[in-house]
Amino acid sequence: MALTIGIDVGGTKVAGGVVDEKGTVVAQTRRETPADDPAGTRDTIVAVATELAAQYPEANAVGIGAAAWIDAAGSTVLFAPNLAWRDEPVRDIVAKAVGLPTVLENDANVAAWAEFRFGAGRQADDSMVMITVGTGIGGGIVINGGLWRGANGIAGELGHIQSVNNGHPCGCGRLGCLEQYASGKALVRFARAGARQEPDRAALLLELAGGDPLEITGRQITEAARSGDGVARDAFAQIGYWLGVALTDLAQAFDPQVFVLGGGVIDAGDLLMGPVEATYRKELTNRGRFPVAEIRAAETGNTAGVLGAADLARRI
Amino acid sequence: MALTIGIDVGGTKVAGGVVDEKGTVVAQTRRETPADDPAGTRDTIVAVATELAAQYPEANAVGIGAAAWIDAAGSTVLFAPNLAWRDEPVRDIVAKAVGLPTVLENDANVAAWAEFRFGAGRQADDSMVMITVGTGIGGGIVINGGLWRGANGIAGELGHIQSVNNGHPCGCGRLGCLEQYASGKALVRFARAGARQEPDRAALLLELAGGDPLEITGRQITEAARSGDGVARDAFAQIGYWLGVALTDLAQAFDPQVFVLGGGVIDAGDLLMGPVEATYRKELTNRGRFPVAEIRAAETGNTAGVLGAADLARRI
Amino acid sequence: MALTIGIDVGGTKVAGGVVDEKGTVVAQTRRETPADDPAGTRDTIVAVATELAAQYPEANAVGIGAAAWIDAAGSTVLFAPNLAWRDEPVRDIVAKAVGLPTVLENDANVAAWAEFRFGAGRQADDSMVMITVGTGIGGGIVINGGLWRGANGIAGELGHIQSVNNGHPCGCGRLGCLEQYASGKALVRFARAGARQEPDRAALLLELAGGDPLEITGRQITEAARSGDGVARDAFAQIGYWLGVALTDLAQAFDPQVFVLGGGVIDAGDLLMGPVEATYRKELTNRGRFPVAEIRAAETGNTAGVLGAADLARRI
Amino acid sequence: MALTIGIDVGGTKVAGGVVDEKGTVVAQTRRETPADDPAGTRDTIVAVATELAAQYPEANAVGIGAAAWIDAAGSTVLFAPNLAWRDEPVRDIVAKAVGLPTVLENDANVAAWAEFRFGAGRQADDSMVMITVGTGIGGGIVINGGLWRGANGIAGELGHIQSVNNGHPCGCGRLGCLEQYASGKALVRFARAGARQEPDRAALLLELAGGDPLEITGRQITEAARSGDGVARDAFAQIGYWLGVALTDLAQAFDPQVFVLGGGVIDAGDLLMGPVEATYRKELTNRGRFPVAEIRAAETGNTAGVLGAADLARRI
Repeated sequence: MALTIGIDVGGTKVAGGVVDEKGTVVAQTRRETPADDPAGTRDTIVAVATELAAQYPEANAVGIGAAAWIDAAGSTVLFAPNLAWRDEPVRDIVAKAVGLPTVLENDANVAAWAEFRFGAGRQADDSMVMITVGTGIGGGIVINGGLWRGANGIAGELGHIQSVNNGHPCGCGRLGCLEQYASGKALVRFARAGARQEPDRAALLLELAGGDPLEITGRQITEAARSGDGVARDAFAQIGYWLGVALTDLAQAFDPQVFVLGGGVIDAGDLLMGPVEATYRKELTNRGRFPVAEIRAAETGNTAGVLGAADLARRI
Repeated sequence: MALTIGIDVGGTKVAGGVVDEKGTVVAQTRRETPADDPAGTRDTIVAVATELAAQYPEANAVGIGAAAWIDAAGSTVLFAPNLAWRDEPVRDIVAKAVGLPTVLENDANVAAWAEFRFGAGRQADDSMVMITVGTGIGGGIVINGGLWRGANGIAGELGHIQSVNNGHPCGCGRLGCLEQYASGKALVRFARAGARQEPDRAALLLELAGGDPLEITGRQITEAARSGDGVARDAFAQIGYWLGVALTDLAQAFDPQVFVLGGGVIDAGDLLMGPVEATYRKELTNRGRFPVAEIRAAETGNTAGVLGAADLARRI
Repeated sequence: MALTIGIDVGGTKVAGGVVDEKGTVVAQTRRETPADDPAGTRDTIVAVATELAAQYPEANAVGIGAAAWIDAAGSTVLFAPNLAWRDEPVRDIVAKAVGLPTVLENDANVAAWAEFRFGAGRQADDSMVMITVGTGIGGGIVINGGLWRGANGIAGELGHIQSVNNGHPCGCGRLGCLEQYASGKALVRFARAGARQEPDRAALLLELAGGDPLEITGRQITEAARSGDGVARDAFAQIGYWLGVALTDLAQAFDPQVFVLGGGVIDAGDLLMGPVEATYRKELTNRGRFPVAEIRAAETGNTAGVLGAADLARRI
Repeated sequence: MALTIGIDVGGTKVAGGVVDEKGTVVAQTRRETPADDPAGTRDTIVAVATELAAQYPEANAVGIGAAAWIDAAGSTVLFAPNLAWRDEPVRDIVAKAVGLPTVLENDANVAAWAEFRFGAGRQADDSMVMITVGTGIGGGIVINGGLWRGANGIAGELGHIQSVNNGHPCGCGRLGCLEQYASGKALVRFARAGARQEPDRAALLLELAGGDPLEITGRQITEAARSGDGVARDAFAQIGYWLGVALTDLAQAFDPQVFVLGGGVIDAGDLLMGPVEATYRKELTNRGRFPVAEIRAAETGNTAGVLGAADLARRI
C-alpha cells in the first residue's frame, strides 16, 4: 500500500506522520518549532521527514502544510505570520534534503483537503467549501475533485469577504470583513462586551475568568455556554449568524456539494452549529426550489494537517 | 473545420447561428419567440436549428442558451421568468427533432463561456468570473478551463450575494442582494431618486425623460451621463461602487485570472468601469503584495448567446 | 374643577370626551368619520364638540388630535394620509363653530402628551421621548415640561431616522428608516418571511392564519407569540432589537427623564419590551457611569387621543 | 453695560475674557494649563478669573467651559479626558475663591451657546443643533431659547449616535458611532488609507507628509484638498456624507431652526460643507413639502469658549 509523509508546520510544533491511501496514520512524530529561526525551522522539517522516511522507506512523497502565504507555483513561502520565513523556497529545500518529491500548501487548504478525502466531506466527490474558524478565519475550496488554489494561489480567503459595508476595520485594511464578526477573536470580543454590559447573565463566564471581563478566553466561553451562561451563548449566536450569512453567499456563488466548518471554535458543537444552520436556512430563500449543500462540522481535528498534507503529496 | 449551431432563446426572439471553432459566425437566422406558448417556443428553436443544419450539414451539435433555471443535468428548464416553460425537457426534445447532440445552458453561463473563449477573457486559459449587469444581475464562472455549474446547477448566482446586511429587499426573498444595488433596475432607481432630489443637476436627464423622473430609462441615463449630467453620472458611480465591492469579495473567494463585466449596462463604458475599478482598487488591500485579476468589459455583445452556446455544443 | 374637551380624529371614528385636570374623562361620545368627505369630517368634529360643550357648559377649550401633518402654527392640516383633508384650516373652523378656543395637534404628539401627564411618563416633570409603534412609527417629544414641536412643526419624526445605511426603502423616499424595521408592518413582514422559511417553528402562527403566510396579521403574531410560537417570538425580537438601537440613539441625543413606548404593537408586553430592554442595555455602554432613562410601556391606551387633546387645550 | 467673565479650560491653556452683553470681548488673558495637576488647574482658573475681575470690578459672574463630563447639577466635573480632574467640585471652588456666582458647562455646549447668541445661529431665537467636528465629535442643543442639557446632563452626545449598524468599533464601547465616520480622526484614517491605495491621486498629500501615509495630519489634508489633491478631497467627501446623514436624522428628531457645524475640521470650508449639504439635501426627502433647517458653518472660532461661557454666566 502506497505511503506518503505529511508534515504540519505550526508556530509551536512540527508534526509529521506517515499516511496510507485510506487515511490511516501508520507512524507519527513531532518536534518543537524554532519559530524565530528560518533555517532552524527548515532543518526541523527535514529532520522530521528524514526520520519518517527512514522508518518507512516505501514512503514516496512529502507534503507540507503551513500557516503561510504561498506563491502560485506552490514552492515558496512568501510570508508566514507566526514563522520567521520570508520568501523562503521551502519546497525545493525539503525535496532536495529528503530526496523525495515534495508539495507545499497553505494550512487552510490542507485542512480542507483532509476533510474532503477523509472527514466531513468524504461523501462528496466533486466540490466542497470549508471555513476554518480559529483565532482568524481561513478557507479552502475543492472544485472538480481537486483543491482550487486560484490563479495567484490566494483563492479561498473567505475571512476577508465583507460582512458589513463600512463595518469593523480588519487588519487586512478592509472594513467589515467576516473575520471581524465570526472568528474566535470576534467570539471573545462579543463575550467580553456582553459580560461588561450584563454581568448577571454572564455569572458563570465571569466566574471562570476570575471576575474580569478582559480575562475571558475562548475556552471559557465554550465551557460557560455549555453550562447555560446567557452571554456566552449569545456570543456563539452572534458569530453563528455571520457565518450563516457568509455560507449563504458562498452557496450562491459556488453551489458546492457540501460545506464544512472547522477550526477550534467548532468544538462548541450545536452552540455554534445551531445558529449557523438557522441563519443559513432563513437566508437561503430559494431552498425548497433547489437542493442546497448541507453544513457539516469537520471531523479530522488535530490530524487534519498531517492527513491532508500526506494525501496532497500522493497527488504530485 | 468543425461547425456547431448556437441558439440564443430570449423573451422576444430566438437567434441562431453556425459557428466555427475560432468563433466565426458563418450563418445566422432569427425568428420571433412565441413566449406565451411553450410548445411554440420549442418548435421555433427546432425550426431555427433545422434551417441552419440544412444549410451546413457538417454542423454536428446544437447548443441552446436561455434565461432560465436549468436542472443540474443540463436537460430540463425548471423555470423561466420570461417564457412559459415549466419543467420543460428542452434538451431532449430538440436533440430528437434535429437529430444532433444538444446541450442546454443558462444564458449567463453561455455569455461567460463566449467571453472566456472569444471575448474579454480569451487570454485566460483557466479561470474567469463574469458578472452580467442587465435589468437584473447574472453570473458565470469558469474554473479549470471549464464552466463551473455547481453541484446543483445553480453556481454563479452572483446577483444574490449580500451587499448590505439588513438592506434593500430583493425579489428572491433575501435582504440587501447585489441585484438591488448594482443592476440596471438599481441604476434607474438611483437616477430617478436623484432627479427628484436635485432637478438642477439632472437637467439633461429630465429633458430626455420629458420632465418626469418616473419616465427615466436606462438608455437615457447612459446618454445623459455621456453628456455630463451630474445625477446620471452619480447613478453609474453608485452601481459601480457596489460592483467594485462585490468583485473584491469574488477575488478573495475565487482568485480568477480575469473578471469580465457584461450586460447592457456596460455600454456606458468608463462611466461605469471607472467607479468599478476605483472601488476594487481601494477595497483590494492586499493588491501590491499579490497580483490580482484585471476587470475587463465584455466584447462579444449581442452575439454572446449564439457564440457561447455553439462553443459549448462543441464540448459535448 | 376646570374641564376641557378632547377630540381624537381617526380614519374610522371621531371620539370626543370631557376631561378634568386630573385626567378623568367625565363624558364621552363617538361618531363615524366620513373620511372621504373633508367638509363632513369637519362637521362631525364640530358636532361632537358641540354635543359635549352643551353637556358641560363649563368646558372652556377644545383640543383636536389627528393623524396628520400640521403646520408650524398649529392651525392647518397640510396633509392627512387617511382623511381627505388638504390644507384644511381645521383649528379656526372648529373654534368659530363651537365658540371655544381650540388647539390642533398631530396624534403622536397628543399621545405623548397624554402619557407625560397621566400615563407612563407622569412621574417625569421635564422631559420624555415617546415612540408610537403602530402600523407605522410616530414620535412625540416633551422638553422643558412642554411638547417640542420643532421649528417647522415636524419634530419627533422618529420613524424616519435611519436604522440601516443603504437599507430597506421607505415610503418617505429614504433608505433604511426605523419604520421599515420596527413598525407593525415590519413585524408582519418578519413573521411572514419566518413562517415561509421555517413552517415547523411557525406551526401555531400558521394555524391561526389558515395555513397561508400571506394571511398572517399582527394580532395573530401577538397571540402565537404568547403561546410560544418560535417564529412569532423572533419577529418581536427583531423589531425589539431595532427599537432598542433607536432608543439608544435618542438617549444620546435627548437624554430625557423617561422613554415611553406606545401603539398597538406594545400589547405584546414582554415579548416586545424584553428585546427592547436587552438591546438598549447592551448598546448604552455608558450606563453605569451615568443614570439613563427607563423605558416604560404606555398606559393610557385608547383614551390617549381624547386625554392628550383635552389637556393640551387646557394650556392654550 | 453688564460684563461677565468667561473661561475656556483646555488641555494646554486656560483662556479668560471679559465679555459684554453684545458679545464684545473687552479684555483677555491666558495661562498655561498644568493639566496633570488638579489643584494647579483649579488655581489657574481662579487666577485668571481674579485677574480679570480685578481689571473689571463690575463683572458680576463667571462662566467656565471645559472638555469634561459634568454632573446634571452643573457643579462637578465627573471626568475630563485631558485634565487630571476626577469628581472635582470646580464650580463651587471657583465661586468661593473669586467671590462671584459661577456656572460650569461642557465645552461643546459652551460652543453651541456662543454660536446661538453671537455666531452662525444668532438669527435663530428658539432652537439650534450644533455638531462640533474636532478630533472627536461633540454636540450642543438649544431648545426653547436655552441650552438643553438633558435629564442627566448628557444630552447632545451626537458623536455616539449610530451611523453603521454593526460598524466600526468606537472607544465608547458601541459599534458604528458617527465619531468613527465623521470626526477629524476619521478624516485622517480615510486619507491615510486612500494615500496607501492610490498614491498617484494623493501626490500632493504625500509630499506634505514626507512620503509616509502614516505621517498624514488633518492640516495637511485640508491644505492638499484645497490644492486639488484627489484623495484629500475624497476624505472630506466621506466624512461629509456621514455628517449629512446624521444631520438628516437630527432634522427628523429635533426640527431645529438652524444647524451649525463647528470644530477645527470646518476650516476646510466648501470641501466639507459641499458634501454635507449634498447628502442632507438628498436624504431629506420631505424637503420641498416642508421648510428645513439650513446648515451653517460656525463663526466664533477660537473665542467660542470664552464668549459662550461668559454669556451663560449672564444667565445664572
